[in-house]
Amino acid sequence: MTEIIKGGVCAPKGYTAAGVHCGVRRNRSKRDLALIYSEKTASAAAVYTTNLVKGAPLAVTKKHLADGRARAIICNSGNANTCNANGEYIAGETCALLAAGLGIAAEDVIVASTGVIGQAMSMEPFERGIPELIKALGTSSAPAAEAIMTTDTVAKEIAVEFDCGGVKCRMGGMAKGSGMIHPNMATMLGFITSDCAISPEMLAMALGEDVKSSFNMVTVDGDTSTNDMVAVLANGLAGNAPISAPGADYEAFCEALHTVTVYLSRRIAGDGEGATKLLDCVVTGAKTLSDARTAARGVVGSTLLKAAMFGADANWGRVLCAVGYCGADVDIGRVGVKFRSEAGEVEVCANGAGVDFSEELAAKVLGEDEVYILVSLGDGDASAEAWGCDLTYEYVKINGDYRT
Amino acid sequence: MTEIIKGGVCAPKGYTAAGVHCGVRRNRSKRDLALIYSEKTASAAAVYTTNLVKGAPLAVTKKHLADGRARAIICNSGNANTCNANGEYIAGETCALLAAGLGIAAEDVIVASTGVIGQAMSMEPFERGIPELIKALGTSSAPAAEAIMTTDTVAKEIAVEFDCGGVKCRMGGMAKGSGMIHPNMATMLGFITSDCAISPEMLAMALGEDVKSSFNMVTVDGDTSTNDMVAVLANGLAGNAPISAPGADYEAFCEALHTVTVYLSRRIAGDGEGATKLLDCVVTGAKTLSDARTAARGVVGSTLLKAAMFGADANWGRVLCAVGYCGADVDIGRVGVKFRSEAGEVEVCANGAGVDFSEELAAKVLGEDEVYILVSLGDGDASAEAWGCDLTYEYVKINGDYRT
Repeated sequence: MTEIIKGGVCAPKGYTAAGVHCGVRRNRSKRDLALIYSEKTASAAAVYTTNLVKGAPLAVTKKHLADGRARAIICNSGNANTCNANGEYIAGETCALLAAGLGIAAEDVIVASTGVIGQAMSMEPFERGIPELIKALGTSSAPAAEAIMTTDTVAKEIAVEFDCGGVKCRMGGMAKGSGMIHPNMATMLGFITSDCAISPEMLAMALGEDVKSSFNMVTVDGDTSTNDMVAVLANGLAGNAPISAPGADYEAFCEALHTVTVYLSRRIAGDGEGATKLLDCVVTGAKTLSDARTAARGVVGSTLLKAAMFGADANWGRVLCAVGYCGADVDIGRVGVKFRSEAGEVEVCANGAGVDFSEELAAKVLGEDEVYILVSLGDGDASAEAWGCDLTYEYVKINGDYRT
Repeated sequence: MTEIIKGGVCAPKGYTAAGVHCGVRRNRSKRDLALIYSEKTASAAAVYTTNLVKGAPLAVTKKHLADGRARAIICNSGNANTCNANGEYIAGETCALLAAGLGIAAEDVIVASTGVIGQAMSMEPFERGIPELIKALGTSSAPAAEAIMTTDTVAKEIAVEFDCGGVKCRMGGMAKGSGMIHPNMATMLGFITSDCAISPEMLAMALGEDVKSSFNMVTVDGDTSTNDMVAVLANGLAGNAPISAPGADYEAFCEALHTVTVYLSRRIAGDGEGATKLLDCVVTGAKTLSDARTAARGVVGSTLLKAAMFGADANWGRVLCAVGYCGADVDIGRVGVKFRSEAGEVEVCANGAGVDFSEELAAKVLGEDEVYILVSLGDGDASAEAWGCDLTYEYVKINGDYRT
């Protein structure tokens, strides 16, 4: 039983967090440096973007996680520290400065950056901000969740409590979207903490498996970022018998993890740049899991469908078109499509052809903030879910002039 | 020597064309039915969409082209005749009606449709329109070029004259964009006529090879249409020695064909839905042709880059990001990027990192109607060119409510 609780990444035992303005961003009212700290060394695992262009912080983090252990996560927003001359130096020095301040090893620091690619960066804001950041450490996760935001309009946080071998454990997470979102094997920034005891190997396995059906099923604009990373810390302070092999405890951990990651995935999609609504595509009846995932992502990734959803236009031909070109193995003659939301459900296509439906009801269904696109393939037992958002004037506005 | 001349698809000897309003569209001021007719049976070839959802007209055309011969092309706009109950019947009957009126075989008719997917369709507009269409046949290609338009803002036509074994031949073409444009092996609608004598086999080879570096390098929104088709007729009335094998004459034909298809490709991209500018990405120094094409298409297909180009924002990080995720085999540390237009040229990235540049000059360069994005990979000799357009408010507006 996984239960939602308050507290974000600070809900599990032994974690504190902070967020301050250090000056990477000019706007002094926006926090731009976040810290998550575990009082005890934790098992740690991460997944990274598959973009050939990888942010310098990812290279440094990968080195630091070679031993499967970490104690702190530091992240700035406002500059991606990518495709610049001194990226690895900056990322390494940031870890060193933070480690010195906290009295821990630099190798136990996970470092991340998000913002514009290809901008020069200096250590100056970090030199000024890190002492302040350490001083600000506390049990509220909100300042850190705010500090990692870029074009996000809301902070994205969750925490859950779950049972592991009779011991109550907790897990918390935060994530940032909201543009350049088309995760592939890894994803946007997501930081997850837990007080569950689990080996680094099992933690890496849990995370690697989980992202396939959580963050990797999100798309906002089809652009896979250079700085995607999800990192998890598990410090064992809950006192459960350490998880070191598959079994019931591992399953409980994975279920809690999935609750956290799916919640954050949905929040990222719903807060996609300029979005007015969350699109949730559920594909059922696929031949294979891979076909189901490909089709679900194909539908929520279709630019034309996204624009139609903005206009609350039940243009289901665009759903079929996307199913047809996405690469999934599908018998189009068996495809059915329904739209569903709090306002009701409307069937618009059966056996690959249109069915009569009430345009009035369809407009109501599509007018809600969360719209399910239900696609049945009639070909097998596999299913998958993917999340996206509508394409709006605001998306164009935000991205027509992001740098300035 | 390929020279541009006037006359569109009617420029070659023996072709007439017509465009009328038959009532597939409600708006009576917009022509919606086009005909291209050859007075002599022509060698004919076509390429089709790779979308699993294929418009019914494509199935009928494929059957009719089994013998590599045709005399007429009929195309309606306003309804894609796809994913409806009676699509093949409608397409077949349309060919039969037209053939009866023209006194030719129904198997010599190529049929195409473009418009909304999944809408019911009846023969009634065709029964009314086809006699009128035949009566209207004349030497002006403009009414037909208008009749195939959907959200296109301008008709797209060209004609060329070329020398084939000492004999002057002509070739003409028309195409429609302008949304759901991400051709794959085939493309949007393109109709090409020629009076050159060439065997059906050589014609099919020429077209199949050509689209790889013309229509298939265009993207507007990443959505591969269900009704893409390019068809070519060559009736031999120019009197040249028939082309039935590779050689100088075949090369001359291919060169003319490429001039026609690249012109139409560029027009389609520049008139992409809501576009304010044509983006032309030239990738050089790739390891393989496939890498070059993948990278060029990846760059002009990036939603984020398209939005930045709308805002004339020299956000070259998005070019690198797209090169990084598109799947091409690239050494990012060697990549260089320049922007060029009539206003000048500006280098923004060298060896995978930013270089100092004048933002003022960059804004001027990106403010033009045609912008070249020059990407050098420094990895080999292969190069490719792809065409796209910016992403604008207007695109969202057009597609938020396309059906109504």
